Amino acid sequence: MAIDASALEPKIIARGKEFFQSIAGEAPSIFNKGWWTGKVMDWAMQNEDFKVQMFRFVDVLPYLTTSESLSRHIEEYFGDKDANIPDVLKWGAGKTGFGGGLVAMVLNKAIRSNIEGMARQFIIGEKASEAVKGIRQLRKDGFGFIIDLLGEAPLNEKECDEYYDGYMEILNAIQAECKKWDALDATGDLDWGTSPKVNVAVKPSAFFSQAKPVDLEGSVEGIYRRVEPIYRKIKEMGGFMCIDVEQLKYREMTIELYKRLRSAPEHRDYPHLGIVYQCYLKSTESDVAELLSWARKENLPISIRLVKGAYWDSETVLAKQNGWDIPVWTIKAESDMAHERISRMILQNHDICHFACASHNIRTISNVIETAKALNVPDSRYEFQVLYGMAEPVRKGLRNVAKRVRLYCPYGDLIPGMAYLVRRLLENTANESFLRQSFAEGAELERLLENPEATYKRELAAKKAPAGRKMGPAGYPVFTNEPGVDFTIPAARAGMKNALEKVRRDFGKTYPLIIGGKEVKTSDTLNSYNPANPSEIVGAVCQAGVKETQDALALARKAYLEWRDVEPLERAKVLFKAASIMRRDTYELSALQVLEVGKQWDQAYGDIGEAIDFLEYYGREMIRLGSPRRMGNAPGEMNQYFYQGKGVTAVIGPWNFPLAISAGMCAAAIVCGNAVVYKPSGLSSVVGYGLARIFKEAGLPDGVFSYLPGRGSVMGDALVEHPDVSVIAFTGSMEVGLRIQEKAAKVQPGQVQCKKVIAEMGGKNAIIIDDDADLDEAITGVLYSAFAFQGQKCSACSRVIVLDPIYDRFVSRLAEAAKSIKIGPSEDPSNAMGPVVDKAAQASIMKYVDLACSEGKVLVKRTDIPADGGCYVPLTIVENITKSMRIAQEEVFGPVLAIMRAKNIDEALDIANSTRFALTGAIYSRSPKHLEKARKEFRVGNLYLNKGSTGAMVERHAFGGFNMSGVGSKSGGPDYLLQFMDPRLVSENTIRRGFAPVEEGDDWVE
Amino acid sequence: MAIDASALEPKIIARGKEFFQSIAGEAPSIFNKGWWTGKVMDWAMQNEDFKVQMFRFVDVLPYLTTSESLSRHIEEYFGDKDANIPDVLKWGAGKTGFGGGLVAMVLNKAIRSNIEGMARQFIIGEKASEAVKGIRQLRKDGFGFIIDLLGEAPLNEKECDEYYDGYMEILNAIQAECKKWDALDATGDLDWGTSPKVNVAVKPSAFFSQAKPVDLEGSVEGIYRRVEPIYRKIKEMGGFMCIDVEQLKYREMTIELYKRLRSAPEHRDYPHLGIVYQCYLKSTESDVAELLSWARKENLPISIRLVKGAYWDSETVLAKQNGWDIPVWTIKAESDMAHERISRMILQNHDICHFACASHNIRTISNVIETAKALNVPDSRYEFQVLYGMAEPVRKGLRNVAKRVRLYCPYGDLIPGMAYLVRRLLENTANESFLRQSFAEGAELERLLENPEATYKRELAAKKAPAGRKMGPAGYPVFTNEPGVDFTIPAARAGMKNALEKVRRDFGKTYPLIIGGKEVKTSDTLNSYNPANPSEIVGAVCQAGVKETQDALALARKAYLEWRDVEPLERAKVLFKAASIMRRDTYELSALQVLEVGKQWDQAYGDIGEAIDFLEYYGREMIRLGSPRRMGNAPGEMNQYFYQGKGVTAVIGPWNFPLAISAGMCAAAIVCGNAVVYKPSGLSSVVGYGLARIFKEAGLPDGVFSYLPGRGSVMGDALVEHPDVSVIAFTGSMEVGLRIQEKAAKVQPGQVQCKKVIAEMGGKNAIIIDDDADLDEAITGVLYSAFAFQGQKCSACSRVIVLDPIYDRFVSRLAEAAKSIKIGPSEDPSNAMGPVVDKAAQASIMKYVDLACSEGKVLVKRTDIPADGGCYVPLTIVENITKSMRIAQEEVFGPVLAIMRAKNIDEALDIANSTRFALTGAIYSRSPKHLEKARKEFRVGNLYLNKGSTGAMVERHAFGGFNMSGVGSKSGGPDYLLQFMDPRLVSENTIRRGFAPVEEGDDWVE
Repeated sequence: MAIDASALEPKIIARGKEFFQSIAGEAPSIFNKGWWTGKVMDWAMQNEDFKVQMFRFVDVLPYLTTSESLSRHIEEYFGDKDANIPDVLKWGAGKTGFGGGLVAMVLNKAIRSNIEGMARQFIIGEKASEAVKGIRQLRKDGFGFIIDLLGEAPLNEKECDEYYDGYMEILNAIQAECKKWDALDATGDLDWGTSPKVNVAVKPSAFFSQAKPVDLEGSVEGIYRRVEPIYRKIKEMGGFMCIDVEQLKYREMTIELYKRLRSAPEHRDYPHLGIVYQCYLKSTESDVAELLSWARKENLPISIRLVKGAYWDSETVLAKQNGWDIPVWTIKAESDMAHERISRMILQNHDICHFACASHNIRTISNVIETAKALNVPDSRYEFQVLYGMAEPVRKGLRNVAKRVRLYCPYGDLIPGMAYLVRRLLENTANESFLRQSFAEGAELERLLENPEATYKRELAAKKAPAGRKMGPAGYPVFTNEPGVDFTIPAARAGMKNALEKVRRDFGKTYPLIIGGKEVKTSDTLNSYNPANPSEIVGAVCQAGVKETQDALALARKAYLEWRDVEPLERAKVLFKAASIMRRDTYELSALQVLEVGKQWDQAYGDIGEAIDFLEYYGREMIRLGSPRRMGNAPGEMNQYFYQGKGVTAVIGPWNFPLAISAGMCAAAIVCGNAVVYKPSGLSSVVGYGLARIFKEAGLPDGVFSYLPGRGSVMGDALVEHPDVSVIAFTGSMEVGLRIQEKAAKVQPGQVQCKKVIAEMGGKNAIIIDDDADLDEAITGVLYSAFAFQGQKCSACSRVIVLDPIYDRFVSRLAEAAKSIKIGPSEDPSNAMGPVVDKAAQASIMKYVDLACSEGKVLVKRTDIPADGGCYVPLTIVENITKSMRIAQEEVFGPVLAIMRAKNIDEALDIANSTRFALTGAIYSRSPKHLEKARKEFRVGNLYLNKGSTGAMVERHAFGGFNMSGVGSKSGGPDYLLQFMDPRLVSENTIRRGFAPVEEGDDWVE
Repeated sequence: MAIDASALEPKIIARGKEFFQSIAGEAPSIFNKGWWTGKVMDWAMQNEDFKVQMFRFVDVLPYLTTSESLSRHIEEYFGDKDANIPDVLKWGAGKTGFGGGLVAMVLNKAIRSNIEGMARQFIIGEKASEAVKGIRQLRKDGFGFIIDLLGEAPLNEKECDEYYDGYMEILNAIQAECKKWDALDATGDLDWGTSPKVNVAVKPSAFFSQAKPVDLEGSVEGIYRRVEPIYRKIKEMGGFMCIDVEQLKYREMTIELYKRLRSAPEHRDYPHLGIVYQCYLKSTESDVAELLSWARKENLPISIRLVKGAYWDSETVLAKQNGWDIPVWTIKAESDMAHERISRMILQNHDICHFACASHNIRTISNVIETAKALNVPDSRYEFQVLYGMAEPVRKGLRNVAKRVRLYCPYGDLIPGMAYLVRRLLENTANESFLRQSFAEGAELERLLENPEATYKRELAAKKAPAGRKMGPAGYPVFTNEPGVDFTIPAARAGMKNALEKVRRDFGKTYPLIIGGKEVKTSDTLNSYNPANPSEIVGAVCQAGVKETQDALALARKAYLEWRDVEPLERAKVLFKAASIMRRDTYELSALQVLEVGKQWDQAYGDIGEAIDFLEYYGREMIRLGSPRRMGNAPGEMNQYFYQGKGVTAVIGPWNFPLAISAGMCAAAIVCGNAVVYKPSGLSSVVGYGLARIFKEAGLPDGVFSYLPGRGSVMGDALVEHPDVSVIAFTGSMEVGLRIQEKAAKVQPGQVQCKKVIAEMGGKNAIIIDDDADLDEAITGVLYSAFAFQGQKCSACSRVIVLDPIYDRFVSRLAEAAKSIKIGPSEDPSNAMGPVVDKAAQASIMKYVDLACSEGKVLVKRTDIPADGGCYVPLTIVENITKSMRIAQEEVFGPVLAIMRAKNIDEALDIANSTRFALTGAIYSRSPKHLEKARKEFRVGNLYLNKGSTGAMVERHAFGGFNMSGVGSKSGGPDYLLQFMDPRLVSENTIRRGFAPVEEGDDWVE
């Protein structure tokens, strides 16, 4: 049924004005400046810095369980003399400042209780009995409810079970009571004659700790397993269940879950199942259309709640950090427009779709009311929802006009409650908040009720044209990282699947050496096998001997003499071309790593992205460094500083980032004007061959890159000691690195240059868990850092140093989470941990597993691993580890994690710095002082604050350590290329016969 | 006698207008566009690039003795398709371009003859007979003359003798003729009744090849020796001699020469001796006043020629390059004002001073005429001079109005003539040229005749306020080099003299070690002696053993742990303070080097300047590098890249730049946050002690710098191999450098960091002499590069590669020049070469002298050296040296120079690159293509085009080589500090609960 928009618009405005009229003079309690909350809100709206500090403080508050800890944090967050702190926080502190003395202690307690009170405004109860009591009151006031159980993000299956139990508890409590409830504005079992009295919201992600987009099927199954019984229970109570949608990453599985549950044979006949859609997502309009058509096809009545969306910041930041298209509308009015369009679509389908409009925006609400009217939608087919504790005038107005108003009621512990509180505070203090504009700023009615299309047009016109991608030298856009893989996109999943099949079809081929552009076969070959199934031969790789090594070096030397003089820009272009080839072949290159070294899908894909990043970054870096720099500006002389490639570079690559690190070292050498002889690891030589193929296709002259797999014992020394080798770029173990360094330092007969060794070696990386760490994030970060790709990263976390006060809580959650990790072939994306790279690694790690278990107390030792001949080792976590133990000092390069206990932050830092490595490290803390301290004193190459220790991105996290972790500068960083070049300076005396042409930049007389 | 300026001014204007009126419609021939010269001048005035190419081409032309060479240069200078070349040069070249074919050959010849013709316009004759003929014609036209013998800068005493002979030849030719001349406008022996008919100009610098400001007395004596007989000859002819002044550096000696000659008993009575003053020099006004008062005191009539000055560009550039105050007026009108002021002063003293006004500027001339009138100066007391071949209308006008007009007539070979031509062309094409403005641009008379004071005020008002010194980070001015010593300033000479006495008073003291801030005495001491007189003990220096070494390292380690965390700016401030102490003590520090290692005054002073430069530069570099750099700009994460000092640094210093290089290495280490243990060379440990003293005075915390002289055989390995040493910064021989590198690469028990070795080692540096090189400059450059400080620099030139066509000419001039060098104690500034550093060096160099003499043919072997026990060795030059000879491959580190012959530039470059060193190099060439080729293919760390191979300045000539010349990046360059630090990256996840504060620079949604 079509609508006459021009007739509708004045009605919406009139309705809105009437609505405002009906609540004239009222304001939401959170803006009431007579109260502590209102004062804080007011200050936060005026002062961005305070807002950041305040919201962060609210976030950490539940963790501040001792009075000392509370005082310290108050001091750290608000103690800055220069900071703009409102009197409401200073109130009574007088000149004594925060944190000290008895008076201060009392005040600090007051602050805590004020904030907790603020949280309670939005939460209907911490216990089931409180919640039921609250609901009762609401119903008395004429409002329906929908109950939502707050919860920390479940990191393991036990927590999911507990969360499930939590739901059962509140359902039971309600069940015991709800029989007694009268219907609201109706009689009988249903409120308003059509809606169940009991309404329950569930967050699907909370019911399965291992859910992830890449594994749609497994995720849906995992969630279904726990949600279905809850739904059954609700049905039993005659209630309504609504499936919430949170982050975009759960969108697809949530929709799928809804469909399965809704169409399950035993539930098909029960209509009270709803789903939420977020209007800020660009995809929502088509998603809703799709669901409506599904409903028609299945002939199943459905229910949709439409919200604007509460994760705008994080969705945007996530997209920006990953280089993805922004999935949400970036102008608020666009979301409002979407809400109007989508709600009309739903109302047009009211026969099959019940509609819940969840908004505090009076324009949005008026639009729904008038649209429903225009479409003759029966009252029973739509209702309104607002959040508990917010927007009291709106709910009152709605009650007046629409009767069917339901309050969304979070219930549960204050710890997750604080997260919820922060979200609500953010929402209400945002510049674009309707409530803020309406009730705190008193904007004009016309503006508040304006058609969002008009708002949008006006704001669009006022915006500057987007700047577009920033340009760097030589007309290339400045470097940005290759977008990470987004497995919420079905094509990405299909791409990997197809590529895996394709790669497997190529199994068993023989790979020749490539020397000076020519394929060279040798009789000696080495098989590279699939670590998940060693009987699968990925490829047979020819192995260079001493002769082939000498040949390759001689041709490299020859190629170098030409290549070094090729213009930097031309050299860079070869890298850019190689990057575009990798981009084209990403899936195939990724799939090969899944099968040759056992990487999980995302890990493998990330490696290709990093390889591309190295090519793009080093290309640009060379363009930057390639322009001679004028030194000084005295007239009569022109001094130019520039660089020259050092010579033949031996690149000895690792197997763990088989494309990225090799491509990085090779590309750096090449773009600097060197010729490379590349020896890949024997465990990833087929990936290495791919690099050779790519450089060839990119048009690199023959001889500038030779592919020379070989046994270290046979040709390693020949490569390192050859007098023509000027640079050795190595990534691998400390032992090998030090050996190379020592050999390279001895000058050989005929050698005319001191060899430069660039070695990235091991790590024994620690993550510190401060006593105020956000454990949801810390545990996720530790698990990922320690066990992704089986811990086979030099950046992997192998020590966790936990502060005493939080030790038990952290360790028990961590252990449970580690037990929930699914282990199996990396080819299957449902597995989060796979086999280690080969049998030798397996044997070596097993020794460390035994060592760990003997030195420490076993916390987790996952023996439930495939026993099919794959190279699996048990995921192992031990505690009671101290500094001097071997497991605290030696690099394992496998999924073995040592937990160490520290009294305080100083001891934690001391332990962290106590190895001879200094590669990566991380700290989870919400103490500004401790973060600052770590920044200075946690002395590693890459330190992460409130992030895991792995996953460094080119440029953004220029990577590499010092001490025994590395010789040389950070890869993917601004100083890296310098190592491959010698600086030269040419100084020209431009005076002839006293006559010096004046050059731009001359310091000539003024 | 005072003048009424207000009355004078209108008369000057009127006189000027009348003057212009009298020459209406006439123009100087050089601006006549009907002629080739006029066309070229016109084009050069329109097109700056062409002007540069044209003048440079004119400069090189005399060297293009073959048709091939001529064609090639025409092609290189004017063959660029895109260049703006006037038709007059392309004329007839058509589409065949330059350089090829018979037609082109003919045209090229035409170009040569046109340019030579242009030169002849300004030169009265190439031979004496031509000159006399020309003079005769001039006199017939009513003009007097002053003859000047053109000459290349004499580089040796033989050339001075030849120049002297040249004067005698022309004087004899004139003598034979002048008797026959009638007086101009008079009768008798004198022209105009008062002036000698014969007038001769002499350039004092041309009569003594070793003249230098630092040796005023020696220089004056040397010049006097040859000028006096010429003067006597002129007297004999009843002539007039005028002593010209050229560059500022000869100013003082020229005035002194004039006074001596004028007041010499046998010449006191002869009044016809004049001297020239340049009005553009700021010092001239007081110089003239001083001479006038000297004349009165001595009661000797004198004569002054006043010019504006012809070396404005080079004086300015020289000052700018050395960081001196600019000695010349920077606004043209200021020179004009000075001319008016000074000419008035002279005219006021006409009773004792005869005046010659040499100017083409009609305002200037009119001022002199009217001032003389106002002062009632008799005609006989002043005359006018103009240049031969220029400004014909001016000379005609002058002839009309003043009669007494003398033409300045250069005479001689075209080679020096071309240099003269370039100067004249420059003068005439300068924007501010009076002739250009008057006759080429037809400026308004009012403007041309304007009082220069008014011009000055107008121009000053139109100028932007001077920008002042450019500021860098942290409020410090950007780095500029410490001004070089200016020995034209008497105080500088006195400063050195006094300091030498002071240093000598301290001889024989004992110097302790300084460990962790405490003086430590040892029983083992080593004497440091004066190499010019080994019996003089400069100091007895305590020698560290293994225990002292370990103590120093332990204290350094302790100090490092604190120092690394001191803010970069604070660390930099210590360097700045140390620099200011050095600045205060420059003379004393310099004098110590003269006596401890035998440096010439300027060499020693330069070393202190370089030390100061290192401190100032590295301080600023650390401030630059000390600000953490944000990496990436994704919202929600804040990544900072910064640096941390590596640890304990062993600095092993050389003796040849005993303060500069040591200060540089130590300062770099210190400012980066490392602690230094400094082992100076045993040959310069007293200088090294000074460094310790300076760092202490600058407030460096104890232990951050320890002074640890010691015998390498006793404590060298203990220092290098100690596990606590993280960095070794070494400058010295290749052998020691490689040994250190090898030892450092072996990891010692307890060692937690790979040692970084930064080694600057040897060189076998070549200078290429192209067949079109400016030999005046090339020979000066080679001599200085090879023999200053006795060739004991790693940058010293030890090979000269000479292109065949120029070989004989170069070698003979070089050998003569080398024979002219004065050898003796460096303490005496008249000596240009002194003793080598010690007896061991003497013995080692003597072996190389013998080797050189046996491998090659001896060209120079100076056995005329002091035989007083000083460590002298013969300055040695050998020829017939080929690539593979030892003397062509091994570093001598002494005054031994090998000459090698090359067929062409390619062979020259091949020879140049044929050693395993790659430190410095130079080429003298005026071929744009060859310079470009050298820029690319002469592969050394520091390459100099048309400069010598030594004298690198911090920053401007960031210093250091590759291959076996060095491990590490250029000292005094932008990458140097990076070697002393480890980069660290801290990445903070700033999102909490989905809320990320927006930071400046975030790539947020647009």
